[in-house]
Amino acid sequence: MAENNLKIEGHILNLSTTGEGDIIDITSDVQSALVKFKMKTGVVTCFIPGSTAFLTTIEYESGLIHDLPQLLEKLIPKASNYAHNAAWGDGNGFSHLRASLIGPSLSVPFKAGKLCLGTWQQIVFVECDNRARNRSVELQFIGY
Amino acid sequence: MAENNLKIEGHILNLSTTGEGDIIDITSDVQSALVKFKMKTGVVTCFIPGSTAFLTTIEYESGLIHDLPQLLEKLIPKASNYAHNAAWGDGNGFSHLRASLIGPSLSVPFKAGKLCLGTWQQIVFVECDNRARNRSVELQFIGY
Amino acid sequence: MAENNLKIEGHILNLSTTGEGDIIDITSDVQSALVKFKMKTGVVTCFIPGSTAFLTTIEYESGLIHDLPQLLEKLIPKASNYAHNAAWGDGNGFSHLRASLIGPSLSVPFKAGKLCLGTWQQIVFVECDNRARNRSVELQFIGY
Repeated sequence: MAENNLKIEGHILNLSTTGEGDIIDITSDVQSALVKFKMKTGVVTCFIPGSTAFLTTIEYESGLIHDLPQLLEKLIPKASNYAHNAAWGDGNGFSHLRASLIGPSLSVPFKAGKLCLGTWQQIVFVECDNRARNRSVELQFIGY
Repeated sequence: MAENNLKIEGHILNLSTTGEGDIIDITSDVQSALVKFKMKTGVVTCFIPGSTAFLTTIEYESGLIHDLPQLLEKLIPKASNYAHNAAWGDGNGFSHLRASLIGPSLSVPFKAGKLCLGTWQQIVFVECDNRARNRSVELQFIGY
Repeated sequence: MAENNLKIEGHILNLSTTGEGDIIDITSDVQSALVKFKMKTGVVTCFIPGSTAFLTTIEYESGLIHDLPQLLEKLIPKASNYAHNAAWGDGNGFSHLRASLIGPSLSVPFKAGKLCLGTWQQIVFVECDNRARNRSVELQFIGY
């Protein structure tokens, strides 16, 4: 098969979050950037340049939007004797730990100009910090 | 070093699972696709277009195949008052939450025509849904 | 926009760890490889060829370096009746499970010759095995 003429295009999403538990569906933003760059086939790497939020996919409906922060609170509670809090006094040790365990990066293939997502699957930014934040997400598209 | 003539090749794996706790080793399928495309160097992005299963790597032996679902049940139990279940009545809130926390994507480098895996490391599809499913996994190879 | 002349460059990091809970900041190693390859724009896929360690990002400060292993011990304790331990007698079932849940791969975009990390965000290798190990991390850079 002949080689493709691949290119790379970068795009930055800017978000405002309300703080811990805010879950923002960024699927249409990622898809719009793909359309803008007129790319058909490839992979987009989504990445948060920060250590108190994470990216994943979820069925974006109100039940799960409620359940996910509840589960995170059960597994990694806000109120615990974190050494981070003792050292820095900002009270967001839980935010860092949640973000590190789930992770800042997500790679999604696309074909025929569309992200290869399931029908009930959205790409979400999950704020873990204990205050409202202005956020950016780096999108790096590789393809043709 | 001179630029490479990179290309992208896509392949879809089709799987049938028996429901929650079914762990399928897809390593040889991914490696076979790599051979079919005659690619030597690059990265394959593996992605599940769905929100109730996840991808990871594991030493695929019967002990861990038993332990992983047990651990998931301890951390994210089937029986809990998930708002997702109350809203949709399908009882698979736990499936969504497990899938979102671990994640749908895995990126694996390859060199000299082989996936850069450890000797006792396999790529696995982990079904989290509460029923048997027909599944697909998107593989997007970038390289030469 | 014109197509880019993309290339792929691979690099292997070699590490020595002291065993479970050892967290090694590999950010400058990844950045140095990027500089060596004179690449400006793209994505680096970092991957552990092994099943008892994981990669993530974290604010690399002593508080969190203490908190993360504590949290892992709470969620996935060393002392539990893992079938892996019963079958193999090496006592590192917890290591495998921690590694599988967090994952062996991390994809990080770079622009203008720099990794797109936050100011207080480092790439870390987290040893989960119950003994000191010599480790390698595969870095695969795609870009120009």
